[in-house]
Amino acid sequence: MSLRRPIRHCRECGSQVAYRVPDDGDTRERAVCPACATIHYENPLNVVGTVPALGERVLLCKRNIEPRWGKWTLPAGFMELGETTAQGAQRETDEEAGAQIALGPLFSLVNVPHVGQVHLFYLATLHSDVFHPGHETIEARLFAEDEIPWDDIAFRTVRVTLERYFSDRRSGRLGLHCIDLG
Amino acid sequence: MSLRRPIRHCRECGSQVAYRVPDDGDTRERAVCPACATIHYENPLNVVGTVPALGERVLLCKRNIEPRWGKWTLPAGFMELGETTAQGAQRETDEEAGAQIALGPLFSLVNVPHVGQVHLFYLATLHSDVFHPGHETIEARLFAEDEIPWDDIAFRTVRVTLERYFSDRRSGRLGLHCIDLG
Repeated sequence: MSLRRPIRHCRECGSQVAYRVPDDGDTRERAVCPACATIHYENPLNVVGTVPALGERVLLCKRNIEPRWGKWTLPAGFMELGETTAQGAQRETDEEAGAQIALGPLFSLVNVPHVGQVHLFYLATLHSDVFHPGHETIEARLFAEDEIPWDDIAFRTVRVTLERYFSDRRSGRLGLHCIDLG
Repeated sequence: MSLRRPIRHCRECGSQVAYRVPDDGDTRERAVCPACATIHYENPLNVVGTVPALGERVLLCKRNIEPRWGKWTLPAGFMELGETTAQGAQRETDEEAGAQIALGPLFSLVNVPHVGQVHLFYLATLHSDVFHPGHETIEARLFAEDEIPWDDIAFRTVRVTLERYFSDRRSGRLGLHCIDLG
């Protein structure tokens, strides 16, 4: 599976590793060190973010970094060690948009198995329409549903989350959405 | 943060790495290679599993591996690359219990930030009471609520999930539970 760059050297001793099925009952190939026997596991990453709303409008950020430079996204990024999914979502909203929010419940859990990622978006209520975007963001602004730049959304996980969000809003009930992207 | 063994050598070139804040606007210390400049990110891991039920009873597995050898757990394990959270939960239920299930909705999302993990448990309905536990399991059997070995549950994430499950069952409605363990 070519999800990630292969590991070439052992994290413990620096020797060149080889991909093989370990002898411990495992069924998958792992990067195994022939010198010190360290097994290197590679696992999916969580991306955590928010759907920050102020009345009818939602906050999007124009990306100042690759990939998808110049495209629009919900504030989101890789979950870090030592934080919860909700804390990570709040941190990313602060870092990317400089937006002050009250965090709400989990809204979408989007699996993206072909890149080994799980994206989790929380509902959030903005305290104001004043934003202080960080270096990863060109511009942060509010969009009503009919203003969303659907052709310039950075990621499918963001698009599907926004689609479900506005659909739920119309139906009057915001639920949890578990979605698998092929 | 001492969540994980520190990375000692670069995965790309094998040189010794040093922990420092990268020069790219990052705010956290990462293992950075002084030779080839590779930045090594370390992120939380997902553990995925099920609450397999047959009528009033729930399936638990007695662990044949460390940690918590001999203690009881819901079937669960580390999510792998290339699968969805639901697929991982179903795979672990098959591997650990040899149990045939119909997977239901997500039931609990439990953050364990001090070990850098997120545990996700799905509801599941067992097709039969015949199990074929794998090498990681000493015994797989069904427990009614008043039979649950509460003092011998392997992990807090399993305990809290079971507590919420039986509580929801008594109230007549199984909902989603997002829980942070300190």
